[in-house]
Amino acid sequence: MNKIVLLPLVFLSLFFQVNCQSKKSFEKYKDASLSVDERVEALLPLLSLEEKVAQMRIFHANIGVDADSKGNLKLSDKVVEKLKLGTAGIKNPGEHMDAVAAAKFNNVLQKYIIENNRWGIPGLFVTESYNGVDAEGCTKFGRPINSAASFNSDLVYKIWDVVGKEARLRGMHMCHSPEADLVRDPRFGRMSEAFGEDTYLTTQMVTNAIKGVQGNYEGLGKGTHIGAVAKHFAGYGQVLGGTNFAAIEISERTLIDEIYPPFEAAVKDAKTLGIMASHGDLNGIASHGNPELLTGVLRDQWGFNGYVVSDANDIGRLHYFMKVAETPEAAALLGLNAGVDIDLYAEDAYALLPEMVKKNPEIETLIDRSVRRVLRTKFILGLFDNPYIKISEVEKGVRAKSSLDLAKESDLESIILLKNENNILPLDKNKPTKIALLGPLVKPSTKKMFETAASSNVSFIAEKGFDLTDGKGGAPNLLERDPVAIEKMVEMARKSDVAIVFVGGDEFTSKEAFFTNAIGDRASIDPVGAQDELVEKLKATGKPVIVVLKHRRTLSINVFSEQADAILDTWDLSEFGDESTARIIFGDASPSGKLPVTVPRTIGQIPFHYSMKEINYKKGYLFLKDGPLYPFGFGLSYAKFEYSNLKLSNNDMTANSEIEVTVEVKNTSIVKAKEVVQMYIKDDIGSVTRPDKELKAFEKIELNPGESKVVKFKIHPKMLEFTGLKMEKTLEAGDYTVMVGTSSQEYLKTSFKLKTN
Amino acid sequence: MNKIVLLPLVFLSLFFQVNCQSKKSFEKYKDASLSVDERVEALLPLLSLEEKVAQMRIFHANIGVDADSKGNLKLSDKVVEKLKLGTAGIKNPGEHMDAVAAAKFNNVLQKYIIENNRWGIPGLFVTESYNGVDAEGCTKFGRPINSAASFNSDLVYKIWDVVGKEARLRGMHMCHSPEADLVRDPRFGRMSEAFGEDTYLTTQMVTNAIKGVQGNYEGLGKGTHIGAVAKHFAGYGQVLGGTNFAAIEISERTLIDEIYPPFEAAVKDAKTLGIMASHGDLNGIASHGNPELLTGVLRDQWGFNGYVVSDANDIGRLHYFMKVAETPEAAALLGLNAGVDIDLYAEDAYALLPEMVKKNPEIETLIDRSVRRVLRTKFILGLFDNPYIKISEVEKGVRAKSSLDLAKESDLESIILLKNENNILPLDKNKPTKIALLGPLVKPSTKKMFETAASSNVSFIAEKGFDLTDGKGGAPNLLERDPVAIEKMVEMARKSDVAIVFVGGDEFTSKEAFFTNAIGDRASIDPVGAQDELVEKLKATGKPVIVVLKHRRTLSINVFSEQADAILDTWDLSEFGDESTARIIFGDASPSGKLPVTVPRTIGQIPFHYSMKEINYKKGYLFLKDGPLYPFGFGLSYAKFEYSNLKLSNNDMTANSEIEVTVEVKNTSIVKAKEVVQMYIKDDIGSVTRPDKELKAFEKIELNPGESKVVKFKIHPKMLEFTGLKMEKTLEAGDYTVMVGTSSQEYLKTSFKLKTN
Repeated sequence: MNKIVLLPLVFLSLFFQVNCQSKKSFEKYKDASLSVDERVEALLPLLSLEEKVAQMRIFHANIGVDADSKGNLKLSDKVVEKLKLGTAGIKNPGEHMDAVAAAKFNNVLQKYIIENNRWGIPGLFVTESYNGVDAEGCTKFGRPINSAASFNSDLVYKIWDVVGKEARLRGMHMCHSPEADLVRDPRFGRMSEAFGEDTYLTTQMVTNAIKGVQGNYEGLGKGTHIGAVAKHFAGYGQVLGGTNFAAIEISERTLIDEIYPPFEAAVKDAKTLGIMASHGDLNGIASHGNPELLTGVLRDQWGFNGYVVSDANDIGRLHYFMKVAETPEAAALLGLNAGVDIDLYAEDAYALLPEMVKKNPEIETLIDRSVRRVLRTKFILGLFDNPYIKISEVEKGVRAKSSLDLAKESDLESIILLKNENNILPLDKNKPTKIALLGPLVKPSTKKMFETAASSNVSFIAEKGFDLTDGKGGAPNLLERDPVAIEKMVEMARKSDVAIVFVGGDEFTSKEAFFTNAIGDRASIDPVGAQDELVEKLKATGKPVIVVLKHRRTLSINVFSEQADAILDTWDLSEFGDESTARIIFGDASPSGKLPVTVPRTIGQIPFHYSMKEINYKKGYLFLKDGPLYPFGFGLSYAKFEYSNLKLSNNDMTANSEIEVTVEVKNTSIVKAKEVVQMYIKDDIGSVTRPDKELKAFEKIELNPGESKVVKFKIHPKMLEFTGLKMEKTLEAGDYTVMVGTSSQEYLKTSFKLKTN
Repeated sequence: MNKIVLLPLVFLSLFFQVNCQSKKSFEKYKDASLSVDERVEALLPLLSLEEKVAQMRIFHANIGVDADSKGNLKLSDKVVEKLKLGTAGIKNPGEHMDAVAAAKFNNVLQKYIIENNRWGIPGLFVTESYNGVDAEGCTKFGRPINSAASFNSDLVYKIWDVVGKEARLRGMHMCHSPEADLVRDPRFGRMSEAFGEDTYLTTQMVTNAIKGVQGNYEGLGKGTHIGAVAKHFAGYGQVLGGTNFAAIEISERTLIDEIYPPFEAAVKDAKTLGIMASHGDLNGIASHGNPELLTGVLRDQWGFNGYVVSDANDIGRLHYFMKVAETPEAAALLGLNAGVDIDLYAEDAYALLPEMVKKNPEIETLIDRSVRRVLRTKFILGLFDNPYIKISEVEKGVRAKSSLDLAKESDLESIILLKNENNILPLDKNKPTKIALLGPLVKPSTKKMFETAASSNVSFIAEKGFDLTDGKGGAPNLLERDPVAIEKMVEMARKSDVAIVFVGGDEFTSKEAFFTNAIGDRASIDPVGAQDELVEKLKATGKPVIVVLKHRRTLSINVFSEQADAILDTWDLSEFGDESTARIIFGDASPSGKLPVTVPRTIGQIPFHYSMKEINYKKGYLFLKDGPLYPFGFGLSYAKFEYSNLKLSNNDMTANSEIEVTVEVKNTSIVKAKEVVQMYIKDDIGSVTRPDKELKAFEKIELNPGESKVVKFKIHPKMLEFTGLKMEKTLEAGDYTVMVGTSSQEYLKTSFKLKTN
């Protein structure tokens, strides 16, 4: 609809701009009846070298894309100069405006862009999403690690569907998310931005996120959704020591079998529009300069047809940081040749391409290759035909009640009950009770949110006590123990019936580490500060202690685990987080989240994920003798589930047949609840050393008291493939163990024999 | 000489044994004038299949190779049965006898072997060496990690020369040592058995050890030395989590550039007779079943011509432990095909080969391949011509004064001074002083050894206080804090002038972990028990505290480091260890050892070695901001050294030229002392991400007070090669930084430019 209103303006201005040339020959690319590829091929030859390179650079709005107090466009000279040539896109325009203001602003900005480059090429407006669109006024969901904990693929689809819609409504077109990395090192500050340690779980979550945000791909052209950029390709979660920007060492076999699958599915199954390359190297080769990875694997093997964007400044970094290019020009050439189509931010990389072509004309072919991919994306997104947002739709589309409800529902499904001694939870919301809400992660809103969830018979007092960090600038410091604050909280617990203590980590103890000395990545995974002491002292009062764990990295919570009567692991919930936690505590819903990571007893146990080679666990030496503190897939319920009748449709399988697995799950309690039924498979003997077990399927079911359901899974040969001795996908005859149960360590098991000929 | 006495007996008995066949045709292999290969080819066809397979199996003496009280041979029925077919060899015969008794016993045993198989084929008697021959009555040196700390290649050669001679004199022929693994994970219980974290240092140490133990190869045939078996090929030091038997993940490039070189040099430069394969896998492929590794790399690339022996039971383990072979037979075939020539111990692997040949006759070719290698080794060692020890030479050859002196000298050179506040060390041995020798690692002999090193003006009191572990059985437990013992030691310190405290780890807190629950590998690298508390309380007395650190793994000694006035890191010294330590403390020699590993501040910093990629260190996040507790190559001296005049003979280099590096080192103190001058090189920019720096040369020099020396190093192109983008050795043009100094973090630097064309 907005086409009617606005496009004529665009056409008009374009007409004036290019009126010295033949209009007809130029306008073919504007013909929406042609295919995307035809339009790209029609447009590309019109562009000057400088205009082409402009289509390979995204700049950040913070270099001068602002609005004045009246909402009029205010561009810096630098931006004005850039936009004369057009641009691939702009990161975060209007990020601090509410949705309606942002939509209006981005319409004006887009109009300016279109009108100020010769061919009227629109820009891609780019955002990110970890817990909803990374901008003001959007629905704030829990983090990806929470989605993973829900083990609910449908919910993930729904969340990202909202993300896609809200982003598009505020004028965005691409999202530099989701993360398809496996996060297995709890020292890594970005752990919560991804979907946990497991290949299969991450694959399910990532593909559903991409399908959701892209509106099943159809939303792209319809203008209702935005394009996804799966990142960081490849191996970024495996930085050595969990240190951002560090080197990555992975054997080729692990890379193919464990790290690649979420990316491969993002491309083949979910049809992601974009891929972002990884900081750092991969076995010595900088990912941004790795043609085997970005072209060989991604495009030649998987058929990826979208664009590859650099991580911020990473093409330039090939020279000055990675030290794999002797000059900035060499860095630009390395990235270009490898297949990085868009340079994010840097002024010292693709900015140099026009000069480089003068000396080395043949690289224009590589430039054309990249520009095609960018233009193709813009056509797919309908930006040439339909570049503006219909403002009237924004208000009702953003933060819709259904979206806020979804955030709450997702919270409930992601909370993990790690401990519940004597079934202390749920608390009776109608019973007169005095509850103390204590600890460094109590927020100003916590008390009110708890009051909302309980009856008026329950009274609350709340006290934060102390902060974990000083929160100052880029490099906040851990704070010293505050004995007065601790004593105050202990006193409050003494005067209450129950203490609920909010501990874990704040936003500074786990985050992307890019400032020197930022407490982003950490060498310790113990709770910082006096938190252990606080929990111990509260427990010593004799009052029941319920720990609410808030955190963005795995913590080895030995003391909490020993002292608390109950532990709710909430990771990093939505904007309604404390209310959701309260609702779980008061039994509105039973917890049904499961751990998407292994929780080690000590950092000395890492690497430690459940799917490591069997040989890693076979010797029960001291440091592993008790296994993890909590295993992958673990999470208690207020209900009690009984697993029985695990059966296979056949105990033999061939390369062309499938087996149906059935298991009966019965809710033997008086509480309605959800349960994640998990199927693990183990290849008992292989030509190469094999994982101890691998998650191959899961289903989240809901059971009424006394109800039982038969859950069915399929085992098909593709699930059993791995990279064999000859580095080819192989399916091997032999015995396989099937484990179906409530966690990676509690299950029924049976087996079948695969015959490959 | 013994040939004259004994060989006729052998010949005679052989003659009777084979007298039904033509003597002449059989005896060709006994003709010492023929080449080794001619003799092997003459002998091999005579052997039955069962006899061949017997040459591929070593059994342990503990299955029934004993002496009765008169020293007569006492063999179990099982052993008698085995020896009818001959044997590749026997592990540890006579291990608990003194050298003379062992030599006599082994002569008798060898005679029995020769006389009881049809062809008179002698057996290989096999030992190990970590701190001298692993048998009674031999000189006990410090451990390999101490040799590495000495940074003195000549000393290593001399130590292993003694090992070779003492072993041969007690009748041994092969030594399943040295370790060529890099040990970079301090959780790994076998850390002290290898030469530290660095590729170059390990290569120097390993090649000198092999040359020493083999008597520069010449000692093998002369009968004065024994054959080396470099182990564990490959990557054993890199087991995940430092867990014995765990999986190993290393990128191909790291494998080639960092892990292989000590093995390659062991083969090509030091001409090791044997190689032992590694437990566990290498990127998914079990090393014992890896033809690419054991044949492709080892033989085809490097030209290895000796035998490959399994680690204990590891061929059988391919089936039941590694799970890469469906049956024991498949395991045997996997090992055989990969190139494992000798099965150490297992009754469930190569024992099956004769039956397997019946079904699958073509594998006899593989058997012949392995038997050739074993027979070849026996001919090289002169065992057919000269199988017995001349007993009269044993007594004076074993534990010779020169060997014991060498053990002491090696101790002095390996002790590392980590801290020396206010130059508290050395202590004046003539000044009347009361010294308390305290702590869990005080031995019964410690006091006497200290008395030996000091004058009678110094008086000592000694108190162990407490043990670290209960030392019971295979799985000793850590002990609880003993407050009474601590208080007793504190009291003793109060009454003394100086407290010397012996802390670190006992033999149970760091050792090969092969029992379930053995405290071999550990998840923590903090000192166990109340050791930190002990040092703190001793310091609190106000008396000077000197820490003597004894340990077999790297410990993050933050408290010792903060509290102690001085720290001597002694790792695991010779049988004269405490005397050597005392001599350093009283200034008989200045410490000159340097750290062969990086000492992290916390286990959370690992992986952490000095030569990681530069990008691992560039972001100064919290956990690395202060770097290591002590860096690789670090070690103080009682003297003071000034480095100056770092010069290159040329600032340009070509692929065919060398650069001479000179640096002046001056002893500006009044103490004569040794110093390890270290040269590191950094490739500033490479096609792949490059190490932060790499040790490329070192020299240990001795300087009198006021003396200065010019130390010269050569830089040649081979030093600068690495595995490039195409996985080929490459030499890249560009700038290189040269750092010469006293540790990996304290140096002068300069640079040169390499031009490759």
